[in-house]
Amino acid sequence: MQENKNFDEMLSDESVQAITSDELLPKLDELIALIDEKRYTEFVRIISEVPTADIAELLDEVEEAYRPRFFRLLPKEIASEVFVDIGSDAQEDIIAGFNDRELASMLEELYLDDTVDIIEEMPASVVKRIIRNSTHENRSMINQLLHYPKDSAGTIMTTEYVRFRADMTVREALDHIRSVAIDKETIYTCYVTDPYRRLLGIVTAKDLLISSLDTDLSDIMEESVIYVNTTDDKEYVAGKFEKYGFLALPVVDAEQRLVGIITVDDAIDVIKEEAEEDFAKMAGITPTETPYLKTSVISVFKSRIPWLLLLMISATVSSTILSFFERNLASILVLFVPMLMDTGGNSGNQASVTLVRGLSLGEVKRADFLKVWWRELRVGLMCGICLGVVAFGKIMLIDHLIMQNDEVSWLVALVVGVTLSITIMIAKLIGSTLPLIASKIGLDPAVVASPFITTSVDAISLILYYFIASPFFS
Amino acid sequence: MQENKNFDEMLSDESVQAITSDELLPKLDELIALIDEKRYTEFVRIISEVPTADIAELLDEVEEAYRPRFFRLLPKEIASEVFVDIGSDAQEDIIAGFNDRELASMLEELYLDDTVDIIEEMPASVVKRIIRNSTHENRSMINQLLHYPKDSAGTIMTTEYVRFRADMTVREALDHIRSVAIDKETIYTCYVTDPYRRLLGIVTAKDLLISSLDTDLSDIMEESVIYVNTTDDKEYVAGKFEKYGFLALPVVDAEQRLVGIITVDDAIDVIKEEAEEDFAKMAGITPTETPYLKTSVISVFKSRIPWLLLLMISATVSSTILSFFERNLASILVLFVPMLMDTGGNSGNQASVTLVRGLSLGEVKRADFLKVWWRELRVGLMCGICLGVVAFGKIMLIDHLIMQNDEVSWLVALVVGVTLSITIMIAKLIGSTLPLIASKIGLDPAVVASPFITTSVDAISLILYYFIASPFFS
Repeated sequence: MQENKNFDEMLSDESVQAITSDELLPKLDELIALIDEKRYTEFVRIISEVPTADIAELLDEVEEAYRPRFFRLLPKEIASEVFVDIGSDAQEDIIAGFNDRELASMLEELYLDDTVDIIEEMPASVVKRIIRNSTHENRSMINQLLHYPKDSAGTIMTTEYVRFRADMTVREALDHIRSVAIDKETIYTCYVTDPYRRLLGIVTAKDLLISSLDTDLSDIMEESVIYVNTTDDKEYVAGKFEKYGFLALPVVDAEQRLVGIITVDDAIDVIKEEAEEDFAKMAGITPTETPYLKTSVISVFKSRIPWLLLLMISATVSSTILSFFERNLASILVLFVPMLMDTGGNSGNQASVTLVRGLSLGEVKRADFLKVWWRELRVGLMCGICLGVVAFGKIMLIDHLIMQNDEVSWLVALVVGVTLSITIMIAKLIGSTLPLIASKIGLDPAVVASPFITTSVDAISLILYYFIASPFFS
Repeated sequence: MQENKNFDEMLSDESVQAITSDELLPKLDELIALIDEKRYTEFVRIISEVPTADIAELLDEVEEAYRPRFFRLLPKEIASEVFVDIGSDAQEDIIAGFNDRELASMLEELYLDDTVDIIEEMPASVVKRIIRNSTHENRSMINQLLHYPKDSAGTIMTTEYVRFRADMTVREALDHIRSVAIDKETIYTCYVTDPYRRLLGIVTAKDLLISSLDTDLSDIMEESVIYVNTTDDKEYVAGKFEKYGFLALPVVDAEQRLVGIITVDDAIDVIKEEAEEDFAKMAGITPTETPYLKTSVISVFKSRIPWLLLLMISATVSSTILSFFERNLASILVLFVPMLMDTGGNSGNQASVTLVRGLSLGEVKRADFLKVWWRELRVGLMCGICLGVVAFGKIMLIDHLIMQNDEVSWLVALVVGVTLSITIMIAKLIGSTLPLIASKIGLDPAVVASPFITTSVDAISLILYYFIASPFFS
């Protein structure tokens, strides 16, 4: 798909396909040259065929010095959308290049939830400038949005939605949409409230378009509504979108008053972020929000080292057990320690990752713990017996018969096989229990997964091995 | 939020909040009793306050024998939506309870992409009944949809969208929407095509609502369009939704003709599925699509055992190296093997999970491999030195000084510390390289993550340990 076209070829292309950053990034220097050579018309002609998300990608790659000029050349109607999509570095550069009037006029274009997101990333001096250049009304809204609890619905909602009175007709509603649509994040789901802003129902643009103009809204509005509270966790909110397939979801305060809406694109961001956070935590990494290649090496180091240290220290427990082992038991048994530890760890991880995701998706509830144990007990028994038998067979066939290692007797193979079977069963139970306990005591289940399971299963498998082997090999 | 209300209290509740499955599941027996006692009006009054996704959850829990009766009582306008949301078991039960006329009338209500999803899960006899009871036109469309490659855009697209001619006015477009809206999956993004169905541009319902009625569509349509091909991978499609925040995306065939659209709710399903597949693969589990508690124990066993077996066999490599180790080196060194193996494995996992996710999200490209190595080399160096020093200090302080273990000399501590440092650097490089190689040769990077990294890093750390220690301890 990506041919190497020059700008004229891109523009004269008959196809309706937009010009994307994939095509333009390799040509960024030429694009900047257009600015340098003051060939602004050409620049604008190209850029107006590029979707805003791609312009943002370009702007992120542009050198600091060119960013304000690049941004000023964007058509006004898309500039604010681009601004929201770029990284906080680039945002800071561009704001620094603005005079107060320019800043005020761009803030006027932004949705308030986006303004709040930007404020949260900016240094104090820039925040002061933003607040100073906001309208009085927006300032108090921003202040309110900034005070919702971390990761709550309040922090991702937008306050720009379409609101109707129940006594309006479809015609009045459509007229109202026409007059306010430009400032609203979505017009496809609209909300009917009473004079105190309490939610009465929802009306979709589809309902409006297919109903006759004289119908009363109260006749077509949906009165069974799924809504969330400002303080609900955003992961809970994202779950509602997954379950119901909504385009938007209303947010109410403690008095059931409609205070905002959350749109599906924000929900997708949450779904993505939450999954990435779980991936990171399960691998023993402190989650960061910036993409890998844009995170500084020192930040990558900082996100990884605490867990490595913690896990290294806890792994020394295994060493202590092993020293006991070595002093008292035949050394041939030590050979099978890595295999026991690895297989136990893998078994535990399988269970823990399954449970962590099940909890996170709401497919498993804490109250299901008995069901979970009973399942994992049976799965563990099946896996344990299967792997134990294979390990016994493998040791007898390869180490004993083929390699002719006389120290590896059938008793060694049996002890290893039995230890392995029991280790796997215990690993499955630990792997499924730790996430449930973590969730119960208010910890994030993802944090106890993988590395912690490995470390604890390691220690347990060694102790087990010791007790099973000691009657025969001490 | 969940008080224990009876049905009358639920219905007389003043709030607009819908009745959800959380409230009704504990009362499922009472609900079924209403059917048994032929109190249908009450049943319908309750069920009409329940969103379709929640009705589907209830229906999944209802006993087989009651499913067809439960389903028949649903208001006709929501029945098809519920049918799409329930599990394939329940779908089969309900179809079995249908006569041909009922089946044909429900098939008429379904969107074709949903029909195809259902067909893919049904046994051959049911598929035949479905095909036989579809209209001639639908039959050929179904056939076509069934033949797109696995996981391609063609398999998740819907063919029911709103299409305009470029010479229509806004008034004609709105009239057209009014007449067809009921059968279309979305009316919020509409498509302008030429007589050969080639895509010319898109028009949103918002554009139509805010433009004056006499405007020509060609004046308001967006002509720079992001579209996908029928054969594009669905993960690629989901990425477009994440990047652009669309509500729908057009799908064209090889001749650039519009053949369908993909809506954001389907994209969310893909995003979710793809993340869950990666979670499963990284934990050494064959992905399954059913929720954990609904998967049979034997299926759980089958999804886990192949990887455990494979990994157990590969872990025996470590045993072989260890036996060599034991025969030739001082036994005190073996004590630190678990710590070396675990820390190396954890370091490698951190890098591999980061890379697997980066590749999957498109944040890292295969061409970035040099950048990646250079980053991981530096991160590995920092982590390696830091952990090596801590390990040296810990061994000297605790094992040597406090525990007074004379065998643990400063030379032992040094050898362990140095081995650990180098192991970590190598682990970071392996962890970041394997996913890139996997991606290069067309394997799924997630499959080589976690367990395979652990196994290979184990072996390498042991070999390294051996070579570093042997000059001093053989």
